[in-house]
Amino acid sequence: MDDPEYRAGIVDLLGAMGLGELLAFQRLAADAELAPTLSDQAALAGMAVAEFRHFERIRDRLAELGVSADEAMTPFRAAYTEFHAKTAPSTWLEGLVKAYVGDQIGTDFYREIAATVDDDTRALVTEVIADSGHADFVVDRVRSAIERDPSVAGRLALWGRRLVGEALAQAQRVAADREAITAIIVGGPGRPGMDLAELGKVFARLTENHAARMAKLGLAS
Amino acid sequence: MDDPEYRAGIVDLLGAMGLGELLAFQRLAADAELAPTLSDQAALAGMAVAEFRHFERIRDRLAELGVSADEAMTPFRAAYTEFHAKTAPSTWLEGLVKAYVGDQIGTDFYREIAATVDDDTRALVTEVIADSGHADFVVDRVRSAIERDPSVAGRLALWGRRLVGEALAQAQRVAADREAITAIIVGGPGRPGMDLAELGKVFARLTENHAARMAKLGLAS
Repeated sequence: MDDPEYRAGIVDLLGAMGLGELLAFQRLAADAELAPTLSDQAALAGMAVAEFRHFERIRDRLAELGVSADEAMTPFRAAYTEFHAKTAPSTWLEGLVKAYVGDQIGTDFYREIAATVDDDTRALVTEVIADSGHADFVVDRVRSAIERDPSVAGRLALWGRRLVGEALAQAQRVAADREAITAIIVGGPGRPGMDLAELGKVFARLTENHAARMAKLGLAS
Repeated sequence: MDDPEYRAGIVDLLGAMGLGELLAFQRLAADAELAPTLSDQAALAGMAVAEFRHFERIRDRLAELGVSADEAMTPFRAAYTEFHAKTAPSTWLEGLVKAYVGDQIGTDFYREIAATVDDDTRALVTEVIADSGHADFVVDRVRSAIERDPSVAGRLALWGRRLVGEALAQAQRVAADREAITAIIVGGPGRPGMDLAELGKVFARLTENHAARMAKLGLAS
């Protein structure tokens, strides 16, 4: 944390994670309105609340570093806003798949990031990961819906691809705009990071895990 | 709880309270999007999460009574949906006033109800009340906005009146539709409740408290 460039990268990283959690909360809570029953609505609301708890942990860590959440998160507002605008679910099932895919890709990304950061940041990231996983509810609902009407599987598979495509587009935008956050992953002067081969493996793991999750939902990826 | 009529009334009461909390969560989370800054958005999101915690406690109590939240809450869906449809805030300040007025009138109502129910229900209601009160944030934001531009006070005062008017209209609808819930308050065979004079005092307290809160915001009621 004594290296100003590293510190700026961690603040960026926490800002991006924090805003991701806050907006995930907000979109999930709003999407819950699409639920067919009030208990389904409550279940999605519960997933949203878990995301808010993650946001709070990250906000507290930023405060410890003397940075306001506003300051750290604002640079990423445009990217997330565009992602959510382009992936607003129009059905309950689309909302469920988005909640699941978004939460789980986030968790995977955090797990990879944990390898490249200092102990305090790693402890926070690990704590946030451990609290995740309302996945069973989503898997159950999506699989039942496909059993009742197999034709939804094709549409939802396309939807899953669109979600990942939009997420990647925004991630690339952030990586291009914010050098400090990129330097956390690939290293900087005097601080080795991942080389290209390692980065390739990270990317392969993220996409493999995504494919495995889609398969669990009964969807092609 | 051995009296089936009383039990039905308590289930109705918990259903109405639970759905109120769940939908308050949902609308607050959605309204948070109107916030001028991300930290304001997070503050309203935090109020929403507190409402969800209340919902969870009520849902758990319903489960103890062997009733699903869906079953208990569905009869009140139309009334709440209409309330929220008619009181969708169009500005951040309207959203704040709605959050504050709604949460606090709910708390007052719970406090009055606590006097007329069994010990277990009273313990739950008291617990839910104790967890309330993110009011300072709202008071601060609304007062600052009025200081900057005194003309907002008139519009927000009208808005406050509209909120209470719509809430009363829906409450009357529920009271007319659901005899069991009314019987909790006014009593039933072998179980004395409030008489008309007491009911009048409850109503007077609710409106006085509301006026005091509006004054605290710097608004006429």
